[in-house]
Amino acid sequence: MRQRVTLVTLGVRDLQRARAFYEALGWQSGAGPDDHVVFFQTGDMVLGLWDRGRLAEDSCVEDAGGWGGVTLALNLESSTAVDAVLEQARAAGARIGRPGSTAFWGGYSGVFIDPEGHPWEVAHNPHWTLTSEGGIKLG
Amino acid sequence: MRQRVTLVTLGVRDLQRARAFYEALGWQSGAGPDDHVVFFQTGDMVLGLWDRGRLAEDSCVEDAGGWGGVTLALNLESSTAVDAVLEQARAAGARIGRPGSTAFWGGYSGVFIDPEGHPWEVAHNPHWTLTSEGGIKLG
Repeated sequence: MRQRVTLVTLGVRDLQRARAFYEALGWQSGAGPDDHVVFFQTGDMVLGLWDRGRLAEDSCVEDAGGWGGVTLALNLESSTAVDAVLEQARAAGARIGRPGSTAFWGGYSGVFIDPEGHPWEVAHNPHWTLTSEGGIKLG
Repeated sequence: MRQRVTLVTLGVRDLQRARAFYEALGWQSGAGPDDHVVFFQTGDMVLGLWDRGRLAEDSCVEDAGGWGGVTLALNLESSTAVDAVLEQARAAGARIGRPGSTAFWGGYSGVFIDPEGHPWEVAHNPHWTLTSEGGIKLG
């Protein structure tokens, strides 16, 4: 199996609210206003928003109804950039789980939870290499 | 906020089992045998495995205990490649949620659920462009 993730789909209960949240963060999609799924190009992978009930059915799982063991993260170039994204997320309607602070692993990070309950860590990790295109290389 | 995901962390209850599953799929990490977190370089992002309880705490969320609205996917070049990965996952201990079949959106896909309950769709989507490095470009 190729060592890759090409698509992350977030199940949402209110697609318009979820889409508006990510668009308020500056994200852009090519989806039409009435589309039932919204795909965002994120580097050379895709993040999708889709009805949570249909996603559960399509994924052949029962929905436990809350968080289920997956957290996304965005690595950035500095602690200042981390704080700026957390403030942008808060202004767009996210709950701030924890504000930016020094992390036990030696970097700086905070957490926001999107309106659908999906958490994002926003982090600066001095041990990882941030590519010119915003990707991450370990080590 | 940069339109990117740089890290996807999967919470796991048995790290050695989860790690062994992904390694049985051919994935490689630089983690030591006793490391508490296992990072896999996946393109220019990273997939991590970490204790689910610690991930919930770090993510500032309550753990609902099952699936929580996130599904990963791997897009491949053909339906034959999809079937091969599903068979590889089954042999490595995954539950097959649904075998490969023609999808309502015009492609071909199946689903496996990893030993920790995280579902993966494995798909061939003729509407998306697969890059030479295994990434995806919409449209």
